[in-house]
Amino acid sequence: MITRMSTLFLRTLREDPADAEVPSHKLLVRAGYVRRVAPGVYSWLPLGLRVLRKVEAIVREEMDAMGAQEIQFPALLPREPYEATNRWTEYGPNLFRLKDRKGGDYLLGPTHEELFALTVKGEYSSYKDYPLWLYQIQNKYRDEARPRAGILRGREFLMKDSYSFDLTDEGLAESYAAHRATYVRIFDRLGLRYVIVKATSGAMGGSASEEFLAEVPIGEDTFVRSTDSDYAANVEAVVTPAPPARDLAGLPDAQVHHTPNTPTIDTLVDYLNKADLGREFTAADTLKNVLFKVRLPGAADWDILAVGVPGDREIDLKRLEASLAPAEFAVLEEADFAKNPFLVKGYIGPQALLDNGVRYLVDPRVVTGTAWVTGADKPDHHVIDLVAGRDFTPDGTIEAAEVREGDPAPDGTGTLVAARGIEIGHVFQLGRKYSEALGLDALGPDSKPITITMGSYGIGVSRLVAVIAEQTFDEIGLVWPRQVSPADVHIVIAGKDDTLREAGERLAADLHARGVDVLLDDRTASPGVKFKDAELIGVPTIVVVGRGLANGVLEVKDRVSGSREEVAVDAVVEHVASLIG
Amino acid sequence: MITRMSTLFLRTLREDPADAEVPSHKLLVRAGYVRRVAPGVYSWLPLGLRVLRKVEAIVREEMDAMGAQEIQFPALLPREPYEATNRWTEYGPNLFRLKDRKGGDYLLGPTHEELFALTVKGEYSSYKDYPLWLYQIQNKYRDEARPRAGILRGREFLMKDSYSFDLTDEGLAESYAAHRATYVRIFDRLGLRYVIVKATSGAMGGSASEEFLAEVPIGEDTFVRSTDSDYAANVEAVVTPAPPARDLAGLPDAQVHHTPNTPTIDTLVDYLNKADLGREFTAADTLKNVLFKVRLPGAADWDILAVGVPGDREIDLKRLEASLAPAEFAVLEEADFAKNPFLVKGYIGPQALLDNGVRYLVDPRVVTGTAWVTGADKPDHHVIDLVAGRDFTPDGTIEAAEVREGDPAPDGTGTLVAARGIEIGHVFQLGRKYSEALGLDALGPDSKPITITMGSYGIGVSRLVAVIAEQTFDEIGLVWPRQVSPADVHIVIAGKDDTLREAGERLAADLHARGVDVLLDDRTASPGVKFKDAELIGVPTIVVVGRGLANGVLEVKDRVSGSREEVAVDAVVEHVASLIG
Repeated sequence: MITRMSTLFLRTLREDPADAEVPSHKLLVRAGYVRRVAPGVYSWLPLGLRVLRKVEAIVREEMDAMGAQEIQFPALLPREPYEATNRWTEYGPNLFRLKDRKGGDYLLGPTHEELFALTVKGEYSSYKDYPLWLYQIQNKYRDEARPRAGILRGREFLMKDSYSFDLTDEGLAESYAAHRATYVRIFDRLGLRYVIVKATSGAMGGSASEEFLAEVPIGEDTFVRSTDSDYAANVEAVVTPAPPARDLAGLPDAQVHHTPNTPTIDTLVDYLNKADLGREFTAADTLKNVLFKVRLPGAADWDILAVGVPGDREIDLKRLEASLAPAEFAVLEEADFAKNPFLVKGYIGPQALLDNGVRYLVDPRVVTGTAWVTGADKPDHHVIDLVAGRDFTPDGTIEAAEVREGDPAPDGTGTLVAARGIEIGHVFQLGRKYSEALGLDALGPDSKPITITMGSYGIGVSRLVAVIAEQTFDEIGLVWPRQVSPADVHIVIAGKDDTLREAGERLAADLHARGVDVLLDDRTASPGVKFKDAELIGVPTIVVVGRGLANGVLEVKDRVSGSREEVAVDAVVEHVASLIG
Repeated sequence: MITRMSTLFLRTLREDPADAEVPSHKLLVRAGYVRRVAPGVYSWLPLGLRVLRKVEAIVREEMDAMGAQEIQFPALLPREPYEATNRWTEYGPNLFRLKDRKGGDYLLGPTHEELFALTVKGEYSSYKDYPLWLYQIQNKYRDEARPRAGILRGREFLMKDSYSFDLTDEGLAESYAAHRATYVRIFDRLGLRYVIVKATSGAMGGSASEEFLAEVPIGEDTFVRSTDSDYAANVEAVVTPAPPARDLAGLPDAQVHHTPNTPTIDTLVDYLNKADLGREFTAADTLKNVLFKVRLPGAADWDILAVGVPGDREIDLKRLEASLAPAEFAVLEEADFAKNPFLVKGYIGPQALLDNGVRYLVDPRVVTGTAWVTGADKPDHHVIDLVAGRDFTPDGTIEAAEVREGDPAPDGTGTLVAARGIEIGHVFQLGRKYSEALGLDALGPDSKPITITMGSYGIGVSRLVAVIAEQTFDEIGLVWPRQVSPADVHIVIAGKDDTLREAGERLAADLHARGVDVLLDDRTASPGVKFKDAELIGVPTIVVVGRGLANGVLEVKDRVSGSREEVAVDAVVEHVASLIG
């Protein structure tokens, strides 16, 4: 194919769009790949659509190769199946809801677990029918609170979602492993730098779930990795290694101290270190108790929850949220304190919490035998040497404290370092939640029903275009990997002479005859404008038909390295074809 | 590719679905191509998706070949552009509207004229940029009042919509002709039987518009064609040939008659023929005046409109609607009659209408010099020999009377015969409506702005799957043309012997190696079940690996003709490959 820039629907921009903050957004707009239609809603112009289709084709090839079967659901979906699984409500404002002319409730599909489960239920009935892997590549809709970064986080986006259906947990594990392996192949073929992180801590007894995070500095997800192993995890999924319990024997007794003017950890530590207590205190010796209220989905009332963490750490609300999900939570308000006078702000200790039946969960570091400075439940008083397992027994532990660089890696190897990434894939053992809610089972060999266990697996196809751009761009523009580039070669006719034009046209025709996709800059614009556009557009090989032609050579430029070489005119076709491979 | 029915996500049904009325709907569901999710909203199962993709690929190839550039818009669109062209309102209940979490108004795109015009406006500015042809293949949404016939008339459906942008009317005519020619190629490649009909009469001064109607007995559109030429038109677009005006000289005077008990045309004709008036009357001699009220979009008040048609013809409300568009209309109600006592129901004549300023439009057959029996504007009285152009002068003519088989063809050739079809494509010279509403113009060579003139062109891609099925099915199932068949060949292993199975597998592998797409029925089901399924699924060539194998032959069946031939085992690959071509 020869695409002529003289007629291509493409106008590059010199300025970054005003609403763009991240490089891929700026460059994809400037290079004429996408255009904004509404917040988080984009159009794909010709070059952008080509990259999207190439990414999509690689995803499809690998899904087909693993034996998954492609089907296609509508995006416009009735409410009922989502009502049956409670997601109509759980999705909250992230779901686009609408009514049809008869007042029927519909939604725009954010993911399709319900529909896949119902469709399999409609077709299959026997254990002999399973296992089954289905997928689709389809536009999804989520009403993001803050659509941002162009197509990195859109409200309409192209997604590959697949679902596995198995009779047994072992089968699910195999389906999960097969998808995980396919995802590795897909992201490797796309040339991405990524890590696979545990997505949740499993604290809720949930099944396996991993995220594929592409490493980019502008990523919204923070993850940690070990300095000494390939351990990597979402911060939400980091399991704090608990120290061993200590012997209670011989520990000093707890003592209440008058500690005036110590409303904060810093002032408390300062006071203690000046109080001549015979030892040095740090914030890590204190136990900070923070009050929340928590409500399960559908529940009318809030329950109070106290979370105890070492005073040198903040509570990480995203980790807390992951630990409490699906319950919602909020910080305890003044009115709540007023209703519970045993909560003495700034001086809350385990005693009052446990005496008054407040659920009290602590950081995993608070093991039996650890001694803490904490609130004494009356103003200006703290207790020292309050020992866990002797003076108080919490209701359990919770992953809520912040994770810091330098923390020991949960797998016992090195220490943790932080990095930023963006989710490009997610593999998830759903288990039987949807099958049970929607009645998906198979008649077993003994004529008894077997509840099907499901996995769900997603890849953000349109997002990948931006992620690839984020990992490959340089200061002058986009730099596409060959496998997704909108063309194989970009020929710049650098001048208005007929000889240049004819040579450029001939080269384009010869490459086209070899099956090479050519982007031919046959515009009347100046060579400078054309060079700048070629750099911005980012086709990996650029051939300049310019001054050298008089000497029988053309310049072949590698967009990645920036290196240029002169190639004899009659060798250029072979040379370019060999680069493309 | 080899698709094994033992693992294919496909279960054929023995019974027609309860909600299906038309053959394609019944068969596409029974053969496991599509499944209903909600009214007018369908899923595509593996075989259906393959047919859809093949149709889509043919459409794309031809659009690319004509030089149109593919882009892709979102389906989720903001209200503002549709507000600017008034379509947010005009679309009425056919538009799916929704709000985002911030209360912003959105819609699901029914067509994208506004977005294309705005996008071109955003990129292009000079007359040198034009002409331009853009297209997309994308899901569209229309909240049909009566979604029916499966994917023939869905509420979510795949459409190819393209738009042309030209500087001049001549340019638009060329763009229109190029699209029309491409549509002919597309529909010819798909093997469809279709006609191209004028879509509107042009009575409102509108631009050229033609519909491609596939001929199917279950079509919703009635069209007419000439017995003696290739004239074809939507019934709405038929222009009634007006007879020549007649000389007024010597025509008898109009006479009012007392005609008791003649509220209908039949009773009137009966009365006249018994009244000894010296000649025979037929219903065609009477002029029936029917009262409507009409309101232009945005207008507050209704105006009364009287329509006069020969008494032997009914008013065709769809033709009237097309003639009055974009005005809405309704039949005059009792309350309206009460407010206008000059309207004597059953006896309304031209005189009272014209005396009282009621707009009066007549059938084109009511030319000067024609004499009519019509109402005399008082109960039980009619007037005979009321002559147009002498006794009354209507305000104009209107295409509202029904078109009947046997009517003369408007092109002066033969007579009209009726047929039924379904719209598969539409080409439409939009003109400058959208450009003017949205400010799309180009700076001309004289630095003056030129308003761009647009064309819009649509093909119902998902509908085509059903239309092809409608034109090709037979009493035992679907019969796909090769170019869209979900597989090239359907191999049935007709028995459980290992030799049969091995021969079937080997044949599948050999054909696959030749690039042939194979659907291999390797299930353990009985040969009878497999044969029935093969007939239902409709792959054009079926190879039966059965009893003949012992004699060294396989049966090759042509699904279209039903003919079978025995082919030597070692010649089957060549034979099948030659059939596929």
